[in-house]
Amino acid sequence: MTKLKVYVDRMSQPSRAVLIFCKANGIDFEEVRIDLAKGQHRSPQFQEINPLKQVPAIVDGRFKLSESHSILRYIACTFPGIPDHWYPSDASSQAKINSVLDWHHSNLRPASAKLVVNSALGPALGLPLNPQAAAEAELLLSSSFSNLEAVWLRSSSGKFLLGRSQPSIADLSLVCEIMQLEVLDEKIRNRVLGPFKKVNQWVQDLKEATNPHFEEIHQTLYQVKSRLAAARMRSESKL
Amino acid sequence: MTKLKVYVDRMSQPSRAVLIFCKANGIDFEEVRIDLAKGQHRSPQFQEINPLKQVPAIVDGRFKLSESHSILRYIACTFPGIPDHWYPSDASSQAKINSVLDWHHSNLRPASAKLVVNSALGPALGLPLNPQAAAEAELLLSSSFSNLEAVWLRSSSGKFLLGRSQPSIADLSLVCEIMQLEVLDEKIRNRVLGPFKKVNQWVQDLKEATNPHFEEIHQTLYQVKSRLAAARMRSESKL
Repeated sequence: MTKLKVYVDRMSQPSRAVLIFCKANGIDFEEVRIDLAKGQHRSPQFQEINPLKQVPAIVDGRFKLSESHSILRYIACTFPGIPDHWYPSDASSQAKINSVLDWHHSNLRPASAKLVVNSALGPALGLPLNPQAAAEAELLLSSSFSNLEAVWLRSSSGKFLLGRSQPSIADLSLVCEIMQLEVLDEKIRNRVLGPFKKVNQWVQDLKEATNPHFEEIHQTLYQVKSRLAAARMRSESKL
Repeated sequence: MTKLKVYVDRMSQPSRAVLIFCKANGIDFEEVRIDLAKGQHRSPQFQEINPLKQVPAIVDGRFKLSESHSILRYIACTFPGIPDHWYPSDASSQAKINSVLDWHHSNLRPASAKLVVNSALGPALGLPLNPQAAAEAELLLSSSFSNLEAVWLRSSSGKFLLGRSQPSIADLSLVCEIMQLEVLDEKIRNRVLGPFKKVNQWVQDLKEATNPHFEEIHQTLYQVKSRLAAARMRSESKL
């Protein structure tokens, strides 16, 4: 049988969620790097894999799939030996986890992505930094964190989303999104994430539950974070 | 056993998808109207149902759930007698349908909602019309329709998404989104939707597959469409 192929860029937050999930569950897979900064997602070869030109994408035998949430659900349901807590077979638990994943799409994800692109990563992707868009995104992100604490992290029966004692694919997706904020200027990051103690604790708990894979897969992000911080220091010392 | 309660506003596109699904499948449910224009989604009573203050939401016995895609999946999996084509039990088919639903969240939905709010419905929701935001949204929406035709409607083996011969919950969700464009000025609607023949045919096919429920649930939208068209004519005749 051919190995599962996982097409990713470790700078993409949903790519990292899929990689950590596969590693944490001992899945035998091949990681294929698609360098977004070099535009490799637009190559004709990659469009054969995913005509929507996005990572992550997988090929499992002859089956091709895109969209990280769907990939996580698919792997959790079809690969043997994945612990049930990641995506429970019980219909109600599964529905609640799906509900968090759907919420992610229209709240945390667009807010975080807009802030990161407009105040840090834009230039690397050929886009300008836009302070006004960044300010709007920061408001949205604060509101998303408020709802995250008030709704999804409300129950104190367990450490993870929905009061669960072990992480689900929703914990992994949302935390990888939040980790992208590492590339922001420290002041901005503290301003937007600092007030949310429950969110910070939960990020820590998820790291511990998925290490050493979590930190390994985030090394690329930490390197970019260091480079951006050094560039900011140089530009401040010139002022 | 208590009846399924479905909290909706028929002016909300995901609310309509859930209603049509329930009616098309003969589910015995109670429709509870939450009037968004009157702010009923922000009432303390409704926040007991959905603290995220959004419709649709359901209560099934003691179980509460929000997010239309998750609601559709949940009902398809837990209520007896729902034909398999809506949300197939086969893992690969299910994964592809999930992938379309995830794509919807970050493409068709934000583009369509932004265009509709900024060029038609804004004032009814207490928001100004914003022509620049509407123009950006129109570009995004065209790009979403292109991808819809090139990727999800590519296969001609069946009339519906992914080349399927019968509709899935993804068909229903996406078509209800597109129906929201009915409230736009006819010129704008034709400009953005007109060029996409496959999309128009597929909307027609989905209507036929789900009537009379489809048209019944869309009556409220058609009434608002008529009122807005009449108001536009009056304001043009004054110029």
